[in-house]
Amino acid sequence: MTERLRLKKNADRRLKAGHLWLYSNEIDTEATPLKSFDPGSQAVIEAANGKAMGVAYVNPHSLICARVVSRDPNVRLDRSLLVHRFNQALGLRQRLFDKPYYRLIHGEGDLLPGLIVDRFGDVLVVQLNTLGMERLGEEVTAALDKVLSPRAIVFKNDSSGRRQEQLERQVEVVKGELPEHVQLEENGVRFVVPVLDGQKTGWFYDHRSNRAWLNGLVAGKRVLDVFSYVGGWGVQAAAHGASEVLCIDTSGVMLERVAENAALNGLAEQVAIGEGDAFEALAALKAEGEQFDVVILDPPAFIKKRKDIPNGERAYSRLNRDAMRLLGRDGLLLSASCSMHLAQERLVECVRGAVRHQDRNGQIIYQGHQGPDHPVHPAIPETAYLKALGVRIFRD
Amino acid sequence: MTERLRLKKNADRRLKAGHLWLYSNEIDTEATPLKSFDPGSQAVIEAANGKAMGVAYVNPHSLICARVVSRDPNVRLDRSLLVHRFNQALGLRQRLFDKPYYRLIHGEGDLLPGLIVDRFGDVLVVQLNTLGMERLGEEVTAALDKVLSPRAIVFKNDSSGRRQEQLERQVEVVKGELPEHVQLEENGVRFVVPVLDGQKTGWFYDHRSNRAWLNGLVAGKRVLDVFSYVGGWGVQAAAHGASEVLCIDTSGVMLERVAENAALNGLAEQVAIGEGDAFEALAALKAEGEQFDVVILDPPAFIKKRKDIPNGERAYSRLNRDAMRLLGRDGLLLSASCSMHLAQERLVECVRGAVRHQDRNGQIIYQGHQGPDHPVHPAIPETAYLKALGVRIFRD
Repeated sequence: MTERLRLKKNADRRLKAGHLWLYSNEIDTEATPLKSFDPGSQAVIEAANGKAMGVAYVNPHSLICARVVSRDPNVRLDRSLLVHRFNQALGLRQRLFDKPYYRLIHGEGDLLPGLIVDRFGDVLVVQLNTLGMERLGEEVTAALDKVLSPRAIVFKNDSSGRRQEQLERQVEVVKGELPEHVQLEENGVRFVVPVLDGQKTGWFYDHRSNRAWLNGLVAGKRVLDVFSYVGGWGVQAAAHGASEVLCIDTSGVMLERVAENAALNGLAEQVAIGEGDAFEALAALKAEGEQFDVVILDPPAFIKKRKDIPNGERAYSRLNRDAMRLLGRDGLLLSASCSMHLAQERLVECVRGAVRHQDRNGQIIYQGHQGPDHPVHPAIPETAYLKALGVRIFRD
Repeated sequence: MTERLRLKKNADRRLKAGHLWLYSNEIDTEATPLKSFDPGSQAVIEAANGKAMGVAYVNPHSLICARVVSRDPNVRLDRSLLVHRFNQALGLRQRLFDKPYYRLIHGEGDLLPGLIVDRFGDVLVVQLNTLGMERLGEEVTAALDKVLSPRAIVFKNDSSGRRQEQLERQVEVVKGELPEHVQLEENGVRFVVPVLDGQKTGWFYDHRSNRAWLNGLVAGKRVLDVFSYVGGWGVQAAAHGASEVLCIDTSGVMLERVAENAALNGLAEQVAIGEGDAFEALAALKAEGEQFDVVILDPPAFIKKRKDIPNGERAYSRLNRDAMRLLGRDGLLLSASCSMHLAQERLVECVRGAVRHQDRNGQIIYQGHQGPDHPVHPAIPETAYLKALGVRIFRD
């Protein structure tokens, strides 16, 4: 590999600390003009003094103009390295889980920037979120095939991140045939996954541990699951003894999946569905005098970019306030956020504000994060995004 | 109650936000001189405009000169309110645990500033950490007796916090007789608790969930437990299938307890002990070429006061570095800190630095906190102190 990308002086600090990203303003573009690079190709990264620091794939058109794929300047990311990394990732998951349902590759957290692979038994759903990874699509397929020989591989390339990389949306079965019902099991409960028409890869494995925690506290309880999607929280709560569960979502299609998933586990009686906007639904339930023992808030990211922070925090605050009003004298609130830009302390602050607003008391008895198949890279704070607070809400 | 303590203008913000502490520089001492208060007595807190905001107990000699015990200015903390709060706390624990081994009262987190109660079956160990709570000692005993009729109540009043409140160290059995062996069960494993001569109440229930998490990953592994105390981590690991566990501690007395606790669970063969300073022991193990699959670091608080932060962070960094060197190609580090002044991000930073220093890779697969019987008050960041990171350490 002869291409070299040179950093400006002192721009190598983040890399030295272990981070994998380079920003376009950190490049010495006089020495190595970004526009001379074939978009998506790999290059050796060198410090201002010429010292080779590793290999990255380059996208001249993206703010993050390069992502490191190896600290060894003599290798490149190819089928062989992909196979090695997949085996490394698989080793971890096999130690963690006894069934083949998990995120196999979590991008930077598994040293594979821009790549997501979720495993649903013998079906693999892949997201190529950067141009550099897009270019390696065939190698990814071949390497997955070698490591796991799956029945089907789907490219679910419709993430918003692809737009920043100037990539098109594209959903495609690249190997085998997708079975009519793709299933998974999480915390002992079965689900059908909407791979092709669902959000992201079709399922959110990241809340597995948080759901497991909540499952232990719902027996005999009346549970409200707001932003239910296909019922990950709600159906699991019913399976763990909740007397009654109401799942609210804006999508009628996904609510049909909730009903299917409830029936699949013999829980059709316990799980009800309600279509509508979350804020409107919370207001309507309040107006009807409804009360719940447990309310689950697992909204989509209200904060996608840094500039959304003020509005987003207001939305989280309002949501937590509105939800808390539906709890009885001694209730449990599960309040989550998947916004990377919302710090844990800010979510606590939303809960605190809601508690004070209603003159109640709160006890945070659980602080959860993304599950272990979504490893956080110690040098990349951006790889930690999920928060879940379990809060007892009571009147003194 | 006629005594009133008046705040300076705008000094009521923290209280309004839900916090329970007042600092001496926030008091309008011209209107209500602190030195006129009977130390430990209760008073109505009023805002600068005279509005009553609640009731607090007052210690004129402490930096935190008052701690709120109720937001209702018409009540006071007495036996009856203690009974109410104990029942409220008990309700939560009974929902969480099926056996009577837990922290029953976690100070401010249970709206009882300065009071700690740990339950070991029918033995209760109490810490009165403030003068205001010390004055209520008899009421605490009577209220505990009413709610739980325990066989024995011990006042283990030897915390460092008492010095700041100008209170003496005092350990006393205030009700009944302490059985020869006080036992508990945590995550299915039995332990004898050194109530009288151990640290704090004799046991650290706060790591229960973190130990439960680690227990799932130790089967067949060689485990090193540094700062083992009486073997909370190490003996549990052995009980969950670790092939070999080495517990290191500076206290020979506590290491004898490790051996007793191992024997109590039929694990004498699997658990070895080693007396010595942690840093020296890590160096010696390295020199002997020892390797472990799992290393547990659960040190005492290296940072007790804000001014200790720089030295403390250096100690955490060094500890993590030295421990990591003992891991093989693909190992697991459990790195904890109970220093309230060490932010979660700073502990991650210690781990990151150690990983880079040894040119390894790290994946944070677990971020744990204090267990649910140590509730965090949403308005009091000081009530959240415990961190535990589970980090896979591997060579690429």
